[in-house]
Amino acid sequence: MRTVKVPLGTRSYSIVIGRRVVDRLGRACMKLGFAPRCAVVTDSQVGPRHAPRALTSLRKSGFEPALLTIPSGETSKCLAQVESLYHELARFRLERRSFIVALGGGVVGDVAGFVAGTYLRGIPFVQVPTTLLAQVDSSVGGKTGVNLPAGKNLVGVFHQPRLVLCDLATLDTLPEREFRAGVAEVIKYGIIRDAAFFAQLETDLDRLLAREEATLGAVVARSCEIKAEVVAQDETESGLRAILNFGHTIGHALEAISGYDRYLHGEAIAIGQVAAARLSVRLAGLAEADCERIRALFARAGLPTDARLTGAEKKSLLKAMQLDKKVSGGRVKFVLAETIGRVRWGVAVPEKAIQEALAD
Amino acid sequence: MRTVKVPLGTRSYSIVIGRRVVDRLGRACMKLGFAPRCAVVTDSQVGPRHAPRALTSLRKSGFEPALLTIPSGETSKCLAQVESLYHELARFRLERRSFIVALGGGVVGDVAGFVAGTYLRGIPFVQVPTTLLAQVDSSVGGKTGVNLPAGKNLVGVFHQPRLVLCDLATLDTLPEREFRAGVAEVIKYGIIRDAAFFAQLETDLDRLLAREEATLGAVVARSCEIKAEVVAQDETESGLRAILNFGHTIGHALEAISGYDRYLHGEAIAIGQVAAARLSVRLAGLAEADCERIRALFARAGLPTDARLTGAEKKSLLKAMQLDKKVSGGRVKFVLAETIGRVRWGVAVPEKAIQEALAD
Repeated sequence: MRTVKVPLGTRSYSIVIGRRVVDRLGRACMKLGFAPRCAVVTDSQVGPRHAPRALTSLRKSGFEPALLTIPSGETSKCLAQVESLYHELARFRLERRSFIVALGGGVVGDVAGFVAGTYLRGIPFVQVPTTLLAQVDSSVGGKTGVNLPAGKNLVGVFHQPRLVLCDLATLDTLPEREFRAGVAEVIKYGIIRDAAFFAQLETDLDRLLAREEATLGAVVARSCEIKAEVVAQDETESGLRAILNFGHTIGHALEAISGYDRYLHGEAIAIGQVAAARLSVRLAGLAEADCERIRALFARAGLPTDARLTGAEKKSLLKAMQLDKKVSGGRVKFVLAETIGRVRWGVAVPEKAIQEALAD
Repeated sequence: MRTVKVPLGTRSYSIVIGRRVVDRLGRACMKLGFAPRCAVVTDSQVGPRHAPRALTSLRKSGFEPALLTIPSGETSKCLAQVESLYHELARFRLERRSFIVALGGGVVGDVAGFVAGTYLRGIPFVQVPTTLLAQVDSSVGGKTGVNLPAGKNLVGVFHQPRLVLCDLATLDTLPEREFRAGVAEVIKYGIIRDAAFFAQLETDLDRLLAREEATLGAVVARSCEIKAEVVAQDETESGLRAILNFGHTIGHALEAISGYDRYLHGEAIAIGQVAAARLSVRLAGLAEADCERIRALFARAGLPTDARLTGAEKKSLLKAMQLDKKVSGGRVKFVLAETIGRVRWGVAVPEKAIQEALAD
């Protein structure tokens, strides 16, 4: 079992990584001093598999959990779902010291976190991420939110969890495609912050894809460490935190124009990262060979590296990018890599260059 | 012109009070470094009267404001309205450095503030309150939110404005009933924090009700000062800030059971404060004579002091109180007055005592 700290003053919390750490949920929540009444928010896929263990652990420690299940999939990340959860929380009389457990992947964490961040102007919540992507990325750092028809994550709040439990056992049954999508965020950490970690991933990729426990635990922990370091320095993304969006500007737009159902988030940002690497060669001095190492690692992980867009699709993509939260003064801002392990952020990129990077 | 500071570290801001201070809106926003694109959110009553001045001031300083008008009244304080505003902000391509101006009463401020606090995970906003109640209370302190069918303000965030402009000229045309409702919050500040201010109000009440400018300016400024002091000590209501809820536990429940349309908020909390004063006599040592001074001042201000509830209505009221955000461990917590000018908070009150206070 490993523990990574996210140092944020009075909002500091721990990420606990290991097999069956979900069994510690109840005791950990007791230590945090929460009120007995609580809600476990999960989805229709994850709930039947993992909710019983979470509920048992909570009940053993004297909590009274209500189980709230949302349909699985990105379409649940919407305001209608949020509203229906509010009504359930009111029905179960959750109070300010009550808490919400988000048990599931990124969608569950984002929706349940937003609900926790806004119900009664904010009640505590605990993340129990059950996908690789959620464990290494979305469950850490306090970004919560939902999509609008106009774009992804356009509505949300910063609301830090009080605890994150990454139960590696929940990854055993994760579908192959989803696991690989999570690897896209793992590779990102190497590119933005840690060349040695990137090289290690090149060495260990097969062991990681085989979900060998030692490799998996180390990779999740290192990813969380990097994320925690960045978030601790810039909680609300006024600067440095933007580097976590490497590949996300194009990735998010790709998700938006394909109606959020063609690509998994990890797949969209794999394509986005390869495109950002290409832009980096032209605009930030990234070596051609490193760009190829990046592309090759995503490809070896079984991830798409090219969207193969038609001319019309490219136009929609550029339009969708204008709605990105990182737009400033009407200009789309990019994170670009100078080398593997070091990026710069806030780079304005001409539309023409984006089109060419997509065409390669 | 008077200025009151709300000292909250990096989130500090000024409340500017005076006639026609709305004409300073554009220049003040320029100083705050906002992006040109912005939205003025107002309602169907206030917009025609005051929006042109606000828009002119913004345009003079180079801003590009979109005017978004919501129906006037408490029914706009709902998630459907929030959602429709999100869509408008996306349509007008508001960015992270864009801002929202809330031009109107408490409903506009609460809804626009919540939208600002959650759009793109929070963009800046400026309050231009146009009712007495909003000027002395709801526009200051960063509480934003909307109602659920299950209760008032059950959904919201803390999101401090970057500036508050209290234009006394906007009160000239405020309907008498609404003005008096605002006086209910003014009297509250005397009760919870400042016996001399309470006594001054007893002396100046007729001048205040006649909206004499010197009295009005002084009363708005002193009210804002008291609120700012309390908020600065406890921004997110972990303790002291609860005193601002004097009379609100019963008041909110009264609004809930009467469908939010029988009483104005100020009227409901006038009744709530008189009931809380009665409870204070029994449970906090408030002198009978001070309880009567409190009742008498509300009555002189033309405010209701008694709900005259049927037995069935009383039952609904007690049930509605259980949903109050201040409930802890299932017990409703009250703010009670020890003397005029000093209150204690977090007092658990037996249901029977509440029933009796309502019966008096």
